[in-house]
Amino acid sequence: MNKKGLTILMRTRMRPTNNDSAHLARSPLANMVNQTVNGGQSSSGTQKLNSLSNTKRDFEVVSESMHSAISMSKTEVLDSVLSDFSEGYFSLSYENRQKLLVQLAKECDVNRTQVRDLIKQYLGLEPPGTGSDSAHSVGVEEEASLSAFYRIERNLRHALKPMYEVLFERLNTHPGGLKFLSILRADILSILAEENLASLRALDSYLKEKLSLWLSPAALELHQITWNDPASLLEKIVAYEAVHPISNLIDLKRRLGVGRRCFGYFHPAIPGEPLIFIEVALMKDMAQSVQEVLWDDPPIPECEATCALFYSISSTQPGLSGINLGKFLIKRVITLVRKDMPHISTFATLSPIPGYMQWLLSKLASQSKLAEGEDMPNSSADRSGSTFWENILEPEEERALMDASVEITTGKNSMEVMLNLLTSANHEWTKSDKLLSVLKPPLMRLCARYLLQEKKRGKALDSVANFHLQNGAMVERINWMADRSEKGLHQSGGIMVNYVYRLGKIEDYSQSYFSTGHIHTSSELSHYVEPLKEPQNRTE
Amino acid sequence: MNKKGLTILMRTRMRPTNNDSAHLARSPLANMVNQTVNGGQSSSGTQKLNSLSNTKRDFEVVSESMHSAISMSKTEVLDSVLSDFSEGYFSLSYENRQKLLVQLAKECDVNRTQVRDLIKQYLGLEPPGTGSDSAHSVGVEEEASLSAFYRIERNLRHALKPMYEVLFERLNTHPGGLKFLSILRADILSILAEENLASLRALDSYLKEKLSLWLSPAALELHQITWNDPASLLEKIVAYEAVHPISNLIDLKRRLGVGRRCFGYFHPAIPGEPLIFIEVALMKDMAQSVQEVLWDDPPIPECEATCALFYSISSTQPGLSGINLGKFLIKRVITLVRKDMPHISTFATLSPIPGYMQWLLSKLASQSKLAEGEDMPNSSADRSGSTFWENILEPEEERALMDASVEITTGKNSMEVMLNLLTSANHEWTKSDKLLSVLKPPLMRLCARYLLQEKKRGKALDSVANFHLQNGAMVERINWMADRSEKGLHQSGGIMVNYVYRLGKIEDYSQSYFSTGHIHTSSELSHYVEPLKEPQNRTE
Repeated sequence: MNKKGLTILMRTRMRPTNNDSAHLARSPLANMVNQTVNGGQSSSGTQKLNSLSNTKRDFEVVSESMHSAISMSKTEVLDSVLSDFSEGYFSLSYENRQKLLVQLAKECDVNRTQVRDLIKQYLGLEPPGTGSDSAHSVGVEEEASLSAFYRIERNLRHALKPMYEVLFERLNTHPGGLKFLSILRADILSILAEENLASLRALDSYLKEKLSLWLSPAALELHQITWNDPASLLEKIVAYEAVHPISNLIDLKRRLGVGRRCFGYFHPAIPGEPLIFIEVALMKDMAQSVQEVLWDDPPIPECEATCALFYSISSTQPGLSGINLGKFLIKRVITLVRKDMPHISTFATLSPIPGYMQWLLSKLASQSKLAEGEDMPNSSADRSGSTFWENILEPEEERALMDASVEITTGKNSMEVMLNLLTSANHEWTKSDKLLSVLKPPLMRLCARYLLQEKKRGKALDSVANFHLQNGAMVERINWMADRSEKGLHQSGGIMVNYVYRLGKIEDYSQSYFSTGHIHTSSELSHYVEPLKEPQNRTE
Repeated sequence: MNKKGLTILMRTRMRPTNNDSAHLARSPLANMVNQTVNGGQSSSGTQKLNSLSNTKRDFEVVSESMHSAISMSKTEVLDSVLSDFSEGYFSLSYENRQKLLVQLAKECDVNRTQVRDLIKQYLGLEPPGTGSDSAHSVGVEEEASLSAFYRIERNLRHALKPMYEVLFERLNTHPGGLKFLSILRADILSILAEENLASLRALDSYLKEKLSLWLSPAALELHQITWNDPASLLEKIVAYEAVHPISNLIDLKRRLGVGRRCFGYFHPAIPGEPLIFIEVALMKDMAQSVQEVLWDDPPIPECEATCALFYSISSTQPGLSGINLGKFLIKRVITLVRKDMPHISTFATLSPIPGYMQWLLSKLASQSKLAEGEDMPNSSADRSGSTFWENILEPEEERALMDASVEITTGKNSMEVMLNLLTSANHEWTKSDKLLSVLKPPLMRLCARYLLQEKKRGKALDSVANFHLQNGAMVERINWMADRSEKGLHQSGGIMVNYVYRLGKIEDYSQSYFSTGHIHTSSELSHYVEPLKEPQNRTE
């Protein structure tokens, strides 16, 4: 599962802050709750006390309905209990939700007495021999003892399931329950971001497994979203678009009109809103910039298109973080577009590089400091053991940088100069042709290195890169000044990347990336990165 | 889960026979396979040998693709392997399918070495204490050791999953895979009906659990089937209608027309065919006979209807046996009909009583034999210990029976007479008004007893009764000569029953049936069964 991939795609909505009202704001009923809570409090001390004890009582009521929902026998009466629980949950304050979820994680997990009893029985039984080569060589008595073994094994498997599994299963079959579970998980993730409780982490991982099962691609429906869809659905597209915000109705209409496609994955139990959606532009060539896709140019006649460009993919449910729906969506969209428009032969993305600047700036800062270590020979011994020094700039890049920046900024070395330029207010560097031409070579070269060579646990460091690579794409081309928006300059110095899904190669590439971490790329791009130099241990 | 309920509904398709070609005929590709296999054989001995070794090679190829599908790493390459496996499976003979499934059950189950290792680690760790009452009272170190505990517990839970789980999961996300899994399970059930292998039973129970998860009501879509639906879909309704066969196009059109409704549950991964469907008639009153529903009368104007009568419910997938989709279907249909037509206040069924005659005839036969024991006082001691004697006929019923049958049949006692009458060729008894009037009182009375009092493990003995009762219905009325078809007379002497889903009571009734086995019924019907007499131990 590609956790990072989707997390980054929905970063703006997912990232928890330390502001409690922000937490509340994340849930649909939050504002209402906020008002209720505030409305319930007044300047009078007595009323404040009442309000507090009301809150406590509310918590007890919801907690009770949660326990009932788990413990009640398998009957129809559950429906009302489940409704009580989910409605009650929405009425709780953030603190009480937190308390409730921790209670669920700690008090309703595995019955460990039962597990230990079953383990004792299990270890006492003879497992089926693997030696027998015929299906029919086993006697009736042996079949009976095997039967007992399988039964205990199954019981043990079931006993190891936490009790909250029952709650999840029951909610899943309850109208609105799947959506509620996804909100529940979003809350759990918020809490975990603040405090890493082992029991809650276990609850989260269990719920995530369940949601993955229920949201298997087989259960999802691909729907092309068009201008004929209900406004209530289109409104969600506007709200959830995470890559290139939709500014107005005309913008939205263009993205659903001629030369454009928008596809969403829907689950029958969550009608009227896609779980994830992708926006596609039909183009003559693979676009080099966001402007080409989003802005003025009228689209070309669809019959002239040769490239389907995926320019935006957005998840709508923070609670589904880590469940890779995008992979299957892309595959299905490729199949669909190929069938409808055989003249389209290139399937590419125009993607952000969300982690590039952060990586580069921290690299420049640390290397610049290490370079300064030259002036302090006494302390170099401490550092050499743990940190490698590397001049990440080429000599000619350094010279050009120092020459061009002499009147604008200062710095102890070329890396500090570059750092200062890149962090200047309002991205000043992008307004000077001279600085642009000087910064372009190192920024492009280092961007190629970042995408192709910087790894974490064998996978691409960049989350969007990792997402497309594990889906089976290759890194085709990087594009200078492809996204001049504030966000684009901040994330990646305006550079964007085309990943290409090469028909007939998708499965191979995905497999080699998974097994060896190998990243397929174009020869154009691989020229940027010579055989990687071994970083040099600083010696003097 | 209501295994019996659905099994009986699809009995005609499900029940395995001892005829191998019949087995093959149960799968969609069966005829093709049959032809291929036959075509491959000829009178020449050499060719026969070739054909046999081809079969063996085919088996090896499919078995290999099955193992690959399990062992390959989680990548895109799987798609082709899974296609190879499912296509290969369809090309196998019944014997080879059997061999393959047994192989899957035995060779790809649980890695027990790993389980034992993990159990050892698990037992060595301290489980989380339940004493701590605050969420935040645990130290960082303790959190770390808890983390380790939860990790091992999760690993043990995962290790207890059989390897074939991977195959099931992968097939589920593969186009056509869910349908294939349902066919696989139908084959497994056929094999188990012949030979109860413990390993295969475990495989079946695991697959059934998985299918239940994937076919949760949240993943299913309710669709009203109308005359506007594609013929390919309507053809399936004709083919799968299990209760009242659809004789021709006019019959089908009537069932989809004015005053009628047909609803199906569809899964997005199995398009174009419902997993289960229900036929509804909108009527002035609760129908007393199949004739009223299926035959000549033109339907009443829909606005005059007060009763929605569920007159047929059919499952289409033998491989989903034991997964109660019907319960949720009925609930959703009630909700839908109520919303559309508030003037409808009665939701009832007109249902067959598939087990009545079988139960009654065997009761008559055994009691009649026991009655004959009167003439052999020596042997009565042997029987009295194990079998109770009971005259299941009332004295006045006996008298009427003996009087009326004197010219037609003989018998040592009234029960044997009744047995002979009921088993006469071509249901002769139904053609004589005299016999009908004599047989009606005992047949109706005993039918009420069968429905309301005959239990197996605390549940109604009749499978359709058990199905509706656990869904929350009550037994409202039994109807004399309600189904005079060969099947209706054979199953239940022509009697049918109305179950009623009483709005507002469905959940209560379901719960009390589940917890205590209590069967709710009308006062009319309960008059048939006096307080149950204790069966008398035969004493002389």
